Amino acid sequence: MRLIAFGDSFVLGQGDPDHLGWVGRAVRERPEITLYNLGIRGETSADIARRWRAEAGPRLRPGESGLLFSFGANDCAVEGGAPRVGAAQTLLHARAMLTEAGKLGPVLLVGPPPMPDPGICARLETLNEHLKTLAGRIQAPFIDVFRPLFADGLWNREAEAIDGAHPGSGGYQRMAELVMAHPAWRTFTGGI
Amino acid sequence: MRLIAFGDSFVLGQGDPDHLGWVGRAVRERPEITLYNLGIRGETSADIARRWRAEAGPRLRPGESGLLFSFGANDCAVEGGAPRVGAAQTLLHARAMLTEAGKLGPVLLVGPPPMPDPGICARLETLNEHLKTLAGRIQAPFIDVFRPLFADGLWNREAEAIDGAHPGSGGYQRMAELVMAHPAWRTFTGGI
Repeated sequence: MRLIAFGDSFVLGQGDPDHLGWVGRAVRERPEITLYNLGIRGETSADIARRWRAEAGPRLRPGESGLLFSFGANDCAVEGGAPRVGAAQTLLHARAMLTEAGKLGPVLLVGPPPMPDPGICARLETLNEHLKTLAGRIQAPFIDVFRPLFADGLWNREAEAIDGAHPGSGGYQRMAELVMAHPAWRTFTGGI
Repeated sequence: MRLIAFGDSFVLGQGDPDHLGWVGRAVRERPEITLYNLGIRGETSADIARRWRAEAGPRLRPGESGLLFSFGANDCAVEGGAPRVGAAQTLLHARAMLTEAGKLGPVLLVGPPPMPDPGICARLETLNEHLKTLAGRIQAPFIDVFRPLFADGLWNREAEAIDGAHPGSGGYQRMAELVMAHPAWRTFTGGI
């Protein structure tokens, strides 16, 4: 299958010395999967909504491609006293992308990981719940990584020690394992 | 630095069970490099010429981004009795992309690796020499991997054993080592 992954620096795997990130780690030893990692540093759901269709175009083979989305941290980051993208707007983007992408192939929404900054982290927790509810309503598969990564603590410990936002190989590996263990991942990557 | 890599399935690392390819392997243990791998399976220089600018846009930070290009195998593949893209046309695309990209940041052209198919391989050998000459003429850095990979033999042995075109981790690692050992790579990845 061709896995086309859209998102932010966490999807890209920013800071992972192995340059795999959680997406690359989740497809390790599966050379039958072609991974197109289209995460971009600093992008909000609005940025991704603007470009995902054009970039999916040349990479998509109908019947053998799946589209993965994961975002939220940059939406929740504060700029000029307000979140860069408000939660209602993020949900609108998520709904539009999942609905449109669902016409092209299987989709998967992976919720945002936590962040060390308490303010952003609190907004991420709420956004994660909203995204889960939305996904349920439009019947899009959703994987919740926020709660287990937050409870586990390794993700935020690494992020704090590195650049305040991105973990190292340990955090990304933990997130990959959570994703791989989820039935939605097996359906998404095995059923195409 | 932000390394934006445009190319075909070899740039993407198709078939590498580690999902790194030669580009990912060449930046291993260098987390200060953000890698945007924009290789796409099956693409010719004409396909890349059409999309590189739009995809570079949201990833580029002036003053801290380098643009890498590598292509040729799909140009040399035969379709309906003729190469998909003739050598003269490939050179036009290469010149246009390197010239335009050079206005945005440092560029690097990496020549195509060999292929097991003797006909394609012979055309690739000629194209590689043409690309090298062009690069010299427009003063773009060029790394020749064709000759050492062909002489070494591992690349083609792995490709033959796997799918007739793409090597496994050994071939990609060999190519990464050739690239990393080249002064142009050190300038490209160290000087930004």
